[in-house]
Amino acid sequence: MPDLGDATRGRILYGGDYNPEQWPEATWHEDVRLMKEAGVNSVTLGVFSWAKLEPRPGERDFGWLDRLMDLMHDAGIGVVLATPTASPPPWLGHLHPDTLPRDEDGRTEWWGGRQHFSHSSATYRRYAAAITEDLAARYGGHPALTLWHINNEYCTYDWGDEAAARFRAWLRHRYGTLDALNTAWGTAFWSQGYGDWAEVLPPRRAHYMKNPTQVLDFKRFTSDMLLECYTAERDIVRRHTPHLPVTTNFMPLWAGQDAWRWAEEEDVVSVDLYPDPRDPLGAQNGALVQDMTRSQARGPWMLMEQAAGPVNWRGVNHPKPRGLNRLWSLQAVARGADAVCYFQWRQSRQGAEKFHSGMVGHAGAEGRTYQEVRQLGADLARIAPHVGGARITADVAVLHDWHSWWAGDQEGRPSREVDYPEVLRAWHRALWQAHLTTDFAHPEHDLSAYRMVVAPQLYLLTDAAVDNLLAYVRGGGTLVCGFLTGVADQDDRVRPGGMDARLRALFGIRTLHEWWPLDAGESAECEGFRGTLWSEELEPDGTTDETTPYKGGELDGLPAVLRKGRAWYVSTLPEPEALRGLLTRVADRAGVRPVLDGLPDHVEAVRRGELLFLLNHGREPVTVDVPGTHHDLLTETAVTDRITLGRHGVAVLRS
Amino acid sequence: MPDLGDATRGRILYGGDYNPEQWPEATWHEDVRLMKEAGVNSVTLGVFSWAKLEPRPGERDFGWLDRLMDLMHDAGIGVVLATPTASPPPWLGHLHPDTLPRDEDGRTEWWGGRQHFSHSSATYRRYAAAITEDLAARYGGHPALTLWHINNEYCTYDWGDEAAARFRAWLRHRYGTLDALNTAWGTAFWSQGYGDWAEVLPPRRAHYMKNPTQVLDFKRFTSDMLLECYTAERDIVRRHTPHLPVTTNFMPLWAGQDAWRWAEEEDVVSVDLYPDPRDPLGAQNGALVQDMTRSQARGPWMLMEQAAGPVNWRGVNHPKPRGLNRLWSLQAVARGADAVCYFQWRQSRQGAEKFHSGMVGHAGAEGRTYQEVRQLGADLARIAPHVGGARITADVAVLHDWHSWWAGDQEGRPSREVDYPEVLRAWHRALWQAHLTTDFAHPEHDLSAYRMVVAPQLYLLTDAAVDNLLAYVRGGGTLVCGFLTGVADQDDRVRPGGMDARLRALFGIRTLHEWWPLDAGESAECEGFRGTLWSEELEPDGTTDETTPYKGGELDGLPAVLRKGRAWYVSTLPEPEALRGLLTRVADRAGVRPVLDGLPDHVEAVRRGELLFLLNHGREPVTVDVPGTHHDLLTETAVTDRITLGRHGVAVLRS
Amino acid sequence: MPDLGDATRGRILYGGDYNPEQWPEATWHEDVRLMKEAGVNSVTLGVFSWAKLEPRPGERDFGWLDRLMDLMHDAGIGVVLATPTASPPPWLGHLHPDTLPRDEDGRTEWWGGRQHFSHSSATYRRYAAAITEDLAARYGGHPALTLWHINNEYCTYDWGDEAAARFRAWLRHRYGTLDALNTAWGTAFWSQGYGDWAEVLPPRRAHYMKNPTQVLDFKRFTSDMLLECYTAERDIVRRHTPHLPVTTNFMPLWAGQDAWRWAEEEDVVSVDLYPDPRDPLGAQNGALVQDMTRSQARGPWMLMEQAAGPVNWRGVNHPKPRGLNRLWSLQAVARGADAVCYFQWRQSRQGAEKFHSGMVGHAGAEGRTYQEVRQLGADLARIAPHVGGARITADVAVLHDWHSWWAGDQEGRPSREVDYPEVLRAWHRALWQAHLTTDFAHPEHDLSAYRMVVAPQLYLLTDAAVDNLLAYVRGGGTLVCGFLTGVADQDDRVRPGGMDARLRALFGIRTLHEWWPLDAGESAECEGFRGTLWSEELEPDGTTDETTPYKGGELDGLPAVLRKGRAWYVSTLPEPEALRGLLTRVADRAGVRPVLDGLPDHVEAVRRGELLFLLNHGREPVTVDVPGTHHDLLTETAVTDRITLGRHGVAVLRS
Repeated sequence: MPDLGDATRGRILYGGDYNPEQWPEATWHEDVRLMKEAGVNSVTLGVFSWAKLEPRPGERDFGWLDRLMDLMHDAGIGVVLATPTASPPPWLGHLHPDTLPRDEDGRTEWWGGRQHFSHSSATYRRYAAAITEDLAARYGGHPALTLWHINNEYCTYDWGDEAAARFRAWLRHRYGTLDALNTAWGTAFWSQGYGDWAEVLPPRRAHYMKNPTQVLDFKRFTSDMLLECYTAERDIVRRHTPHLPVTTNFMPLWAGQDAWRWAEEEDVVSVDLYPDPRDPLGAQNGALVQDMTRSQARGPWMLMEQAAGPVNWRGVNHPKPRGLNRLWSLQAVARGADAVCYFQWRQSRQGAEKFHSGMVGHAGAEGRTYQEVRQLGADLARIAPHVGGARITADVAVLHDWHSWWAGDQEGRPSREVDYPEVLRAWHRALWQAHLTTDFAHPEHDLSAYRMVVAPQLYLLTDAAVDNLLAYVRGGGTLVCGFLTGVADQDDRVRPGGMDARLRALFGIRTLHEWWPLDAGESAECEGFRGTLWSEELEPDGTTDETTPYKGGELDGLPAVLRKGRAWYVSTLPEPEALRGLLTRVADRAGVRPVLDGLPDHVEAVRRGELLFLLNHGREPVTVDVPGTHHDLLTETAVTDRITLGRHGVAVLRS
Repeated sequence: MPDLGDATRGRILYGGDYNPEQWPEATWHEDVRLMKEAGVNSVTLGVFSWAKLEPRPGERDFGWLDRLMDLMHDAGIGVVLATPTASPPPWLGHLHPDTLPRDEDGRTEWWGGRQHFSHSSATYRRYAAAITEDLAARYGGHPALTLWHINNEYCTYDWGDEAAARFRAWLRHRYGTLDALNTAWGTAFWSQGYGDWAEVLPPRRAHYMKNPTQVLDFKRFTSDMLLECYTAERDIVRRHTPHLPVTTNFMPLWAGQDAWRWAEEEDVVSVDLYPDPRDPLGAQNGALVQDMTRSQARGPWMLMEQAAGPVNWRGVNHPKPRGLNRLWSLQAVARGADAVCYFQWRQSRQGAEKFHSGMVGHAGAEGRTYQEVRQLGADLARIAPHVGGARITADVAVLHDWHSWWAGDQEGRPSREVDYPEVLRAWHRALWQAHLTTDFAHPEHDLSAYRMVVAPQLYLLTDAAVDNLLAYVRGGGTLVCGFLTGVADQDDRVRPGGMDARLRALFGIRTLHEWWPLDAGESAECEGFRGTLWSEELEPDGTTDETTPYKGGELDGLPAVLRKGRAWYVSTLPEPEALRGLLTRVADRAGVRPVLDGLPDHVEAVRRGELLFLLNHGREPVTVDVPGTHHDLLTETAVTDRITLGRHGVAVLRS
Repeated sequence: MPDLGDATRGRILYGGDYNPEQWPEATWHEDVRLMKEAGVNSVTLGVFSWAKLEPRPGERDFGWLDRLMDLMHDAGIGVVLATPTASPPPWLGHLHPDTLPRDEDGRTEWWGGRQHFSHSSATYRRYAAAITEDLAARYGGHPALTLWHINNEYCTYDWGDEAAARFRAWLRHRYGTLDALNTAWGTAFWSQGYGDWAEVLPPRRAHYMKNPTQVLDFKRFTSDMLLECYTAERDIVRRHTPHLPVTTNFMPLWAGQDAWRWAEEEDVVSVDLYPDPRDPLGAQNGALVQDMTRSQARGPWMLMEQAAGPVNWRGVNHPKPRGLNRLWSLQAVARGADAVCYFQWRQSRQGAEKFHSGMVGHAGAEGRTYQEVRQLGADLARIAPHVGGARITADVAVLHDWHSWWAGDQEGRPSREVDYPEVLRAWHRALWQAHLTTDFAHPEHDLSAYRMVVAPQLYLLTDAAVDNLLAYVRGGGTLVCGFLTGVADQDDRVRPGGMDARLRALFGIRTLHEWWPLDAGESAECEGFRGTLWSEELEPDGTTDETTPYKGGELDGLPAVLRKGRAWYVSTLPEPEALRGLLTRVADRAGVRPVLDGLPDHVEAVRRGELLFLLNHGREPVTVDVPGTHHDLLTETAVTDRITLGRHGVAVLRS
């Protein structure tokens, strides 16, 4: 199968979404000039071009795109060509209202924005396939084409009637019989037993709490329907260009898509990444997404979109201070990206995203933003020969599963204060701050290559996943589990005892008497640290090797943290420093070392292939000890034993 | 007529909702074993069994319930049998969409949760009557049956077209003519005059504020429609079993139901009670509901549902610390309950309530929760012979009326900070903390048995109610009224002067110039205390016997509290200690004494029949003076002059 | 054309909305007695009388209104007669559901409140025209009639199908061709190109951000449709009574209506004004509205509605403390009002506004509110002969434009913290606190009469407006612009460079690199003051005459404020004292002087004609220096060199 290397061909792809429909052709030539000046070698065309390509149903207008493809080819700029199916033209909804999604209250999502298509609409799928077919037929052989980009940020839901019909079909496929569905959903409770498939609906507005397994299956269904939309288009382009890789761009840690499953259907895994420049944890949030994307890609990946400056969808949209765009772009390369791209090349003057920055902003070529983009282009060209295709090795894996998230994030649970992504971030952050390189993994993945596996919160664990974790520990691995792990099975059925019995035995827990969730701002005093969010009334079974108790309160003396052999259970969320300390100690025992010893705070270090990346996230210069002699690819100078990084400075060292 | 005694037969009913449809039959036998071990003598069956009993329209499947009824009877456990009409099967909504309610925006409430039925749907009522008829015919003669439980927590609204038709019929019945309706609703304002009954609608979404009397009548109508649903089913079961009592379970202080009126239609008044274990005022909130339920029952009542541990519908759901379940259960008995039941016996493993605790939780029989349930069963058995049927005498009544609440809680009023239930709680709390036993009463009830009557806020007072209050004071009673009392008549028409003229004369008020509501967090300085929420610019008429003035601000020197003879008016909400002090002084003058002198804070004392209950709501042991010699039924020891209660400890003393 | 003078005839109109349909006729006579006692000389009839006048479709019942008109005439009280079209009778919506508006989610706004009419409904317009026609025919010649009041507070939106059809027609008229619309809306982005007019819709609920120019045009359309409703009725009454003035009452600074454009269609500009009595800036908010209304009227204007006491639509509705009603009423006269009217004469006892105060409140004639109303009537009569028709001269104009507000207040912009009305208020407040009398002006108005023009935030500026500002400065004017000015053109298209190039040149700005919006509560340190809300990364072009830099942070040393000649640019919102100081200095250089020197805080001074109004907004007495000898019209005493104003005291001095 083709992969990202077929598009990069030894380079780091640099560029971004280009929506030239917005500009007169004269501007296209100015754009090419500036692109070349900035080292841009890749543009993404066609993402929002459906109305332009098919101005009326069945018509085709390819002339403008022909000229652009040629223009790019002449300039030596590769084209990532998008199917335009994320934003249907107004005529589609007007002629075919069945293509429009309905929300759980029955309200229509109209055109006038974007993504106003129902994943379940046969009509939508038919039109989308037709334009994809013609696009692939026309440009499959164009020399500028390097990669296919299907749709954009798949992210829609639909509770309407056609979606209901598809949901029923999906459920029939999953369960075979209504009896099996009734069992899986626990419909014996609240008189929800279904006697006919026709009675089954998406979880629409209800008087009181909805059936949680119905909601869980609806999320699974939604991810699968969107995936069907993707694979249908992918299969079309693949038929035309079997040699070219195909991708669709993920939104980071987006709730609607089982990206583990999706990644298997992609040749290239790509992601859009927009940390808030004002967020003191922005760099860590970026690292998390980069680690997860790399793990999904199982190798180099593509940063499909980022912002050269501010976005426009936050309450207050801060620009990137001097140096931050370069720093965060090189961080992505350090963590495995072989493509650094933006939304979008030239900032729109009209429409909904005119206050979202571009590589060329409203200030034009004189603006600071473009000037920094140009510098970054030179940096990327400098390091590309040494980076492209190189791999990263991690000794630690963090477990993450969308199905578990979906099951846990529902009405009627012990605490709405528990926000799964925040818990995941807290655990990843502790590892990141401890300078431990981490992969992400699915709980059913082979984990044997890792010295240490961390499961921040896997509320739902299938039997296979439990088997996998037990086998991992039996095989010598170190496992650390956070609270609310192993509570439910694949149908969101609470396991007897409130936690899988084999996991309880693994950790040395006899009885889980009660969960004691904590209020917002509340903490639970433990020996040596404070816990947040959660605590538990646990009775150990006498086989633990080590426990750290709660102190004071109703849980006084009961274990907060238990260790039995190489299996750890943490029944609260330790405050950040405490969690970092705990994981550092566990890692140390497991033989996992930080990337470098003695790293200052705010300095991130990553080894990729034979290179060592050092990134200063602080605004003050900092000196880092790097024993030995190295060559800094960015400055092309020698470095011996220590190096000083300026504000937001980066070094890429080869030993 | 039958009453609760026909079900208790000298015992305290102990048990809870049992939803065995969720479990294999093998589990039923394990359940019976644990029930007997815990002293359970009553289970409620069938609450959510409609889909099981009628799997397809008109079909019946009673076999499983036959076996359960027999099983319970064999075990000596009585059955409270529920009509299953609170949660229709999916086929009902699917075949008959007219059974589904619509909200004020026209949105449907679909099946998939529970209570997705329109109280106004003739189709729903027909199916509900049919299953009730067959259930009553089949089990009316079963020896296990002790009590009928109709539906569950009636609580739905409907703004749809069939509800609109019933609303018009209800209005015709109330008003006779459109002229009378136009007068009552004040439709001369804002051009709302109706010329045809067909024009009258429920108060659906409007551009700006709705007609308040229309809204008030819609609340009255809703309560009445739900009551019609109840009485229709009650009449069916009563026809089959005239000797058995009937109930439906209230939600405490729920806004949608005029429980005074409903209680008249019940043989047994029952309530569901779920104070937050974390709420420092949880015990008082419980006491309020218990006092109100007892007053509605005019004798012993039934605690139909409580939680053995956490619920699952709050933001953060805290478990019950050790001892709290016993403490609050015995509090209910102290305040008149002859039945202590739970939702539910065994915690669900699936469905929307799987994180709502059960008497047997996820931890099973080894769990602390079940262990404490078992201890409580023994306690209840110990005291039952001395408690059953015994009455409580109160010298103080607190007035409460749903119609007044409904009228006062609307758009376009002086202050949205005024929350009626909170005001009611504040006044009850002051009395509770002063250890004064209180009943609740409707403002048109005969009040002559009480030495003191407190009206925290009766915004709407009918002429009959005003007459009643005046007669009460004339007859020697002491009356204390809070602000916003007597403002409106039965149609929510503001009385001339902003407050009923006879009430103004009663308190010595000449002119109510303006209401001065206070902002959140603001207070009004008064002589000796601070007021919250509200203040008033009042001009006395020179006949008052006593006034406490405002100090400073725009109201400086004007009266905050007025007394004329035995009638008191409090134009603000004094801070808790001040209100407690005020009511203690008023009670003392009225000859009302606390249950015991010298009671420590956190200790609640209640006399029921010949017993004195002492309840320690604190987490520290406390010693209470109880002059004389007593027998503690729980410990079966003698107590002389003083007793020490441990953390959450309880004593039940017989002298 | 007739004007306000035709209604006032040398008096200050004093009175209010009178809704006598609510009262028996006996009360009408009591009302007239109290009106005369209070000096009331004008009442507004018929605002909500449609159902009374047309109880069934096509019927007419004028008898009651005949009697009222005669009664008023006999009492010497003039009548402002309203068309009753703001609140259609229930029968209209019932017979013609097409007259009901739909919101963007498709939800109907039902009758039961008021203003439940679609501006786009042909049926509504037909019925509204018919009742207007008959009303004008019947009362056009009545001697009591002084002024026509069309509808009431036009303020509705409609996203429904008939509105969609009218929107398309409006757009056709605006753009001529679909190509022009596509260009204006920038539909090339996000695949929004329209191929058929039938595809164009109002901006209904969408999956993600809507097209901002579509939203902008929908706001323009809404204002225009409402205006069509107004002019249709105006034309009818004008045909009957060409000699009588016509008005409709604005809501102050309401977002839905381009009041500049509307004012051109009115003979009398009137406004409803309800500052919060608790708001420490209530007086300034009042002054702003008064200045704006006077500027729209280009002369005397009418205060159509205010409250004698509390309103009922805030969360907490505070009454007016003693003296405040008089103070704020005289403030309106000082700032150009020749009519001081209220909603409503007698407080309703029923309906949605029964807690909105009246001139005669629930307390009746004895209430403090009516007593103060009576005193004010006497005051107005005393000053009327000297005030009526007199003009106010301002040297400063503040620019304001609804289209700019509409364009700027959208999704997807740099900062949701920036609230246009708040920014406008902040700048006006600084001028008001500096005792500088200000007009408001549209950016395309002739500004040459002003010494100083302030543009707090004109995000959208047409080319004509830019020309106008440049010409103003060239002509010797002093211009001060706040941030986010000149960003977009008439289609909400961002101008190259992010700010109009000619404006940049005017201020000496070479490059606007980035906007740096500030978080809520954040501030930007500048030389000598702190900025809020916003900051900018600006590069000057070397031609500025003066700059004040940012200090510290990422913008250290860059200009926060720039001056080039008489043109100032302020790239942040200085804190209140700093903005007042800045504008005082700029005004001083421009030769603009405060109304009086040495005025204490809290004292407002306004010159109207030959009179000097002094208003003490404080609750403590204050002494004001007024050199020379004057006559105080209110106390009819001589004043020499200084005067002491009591709490909320007012003096009206003639020299």
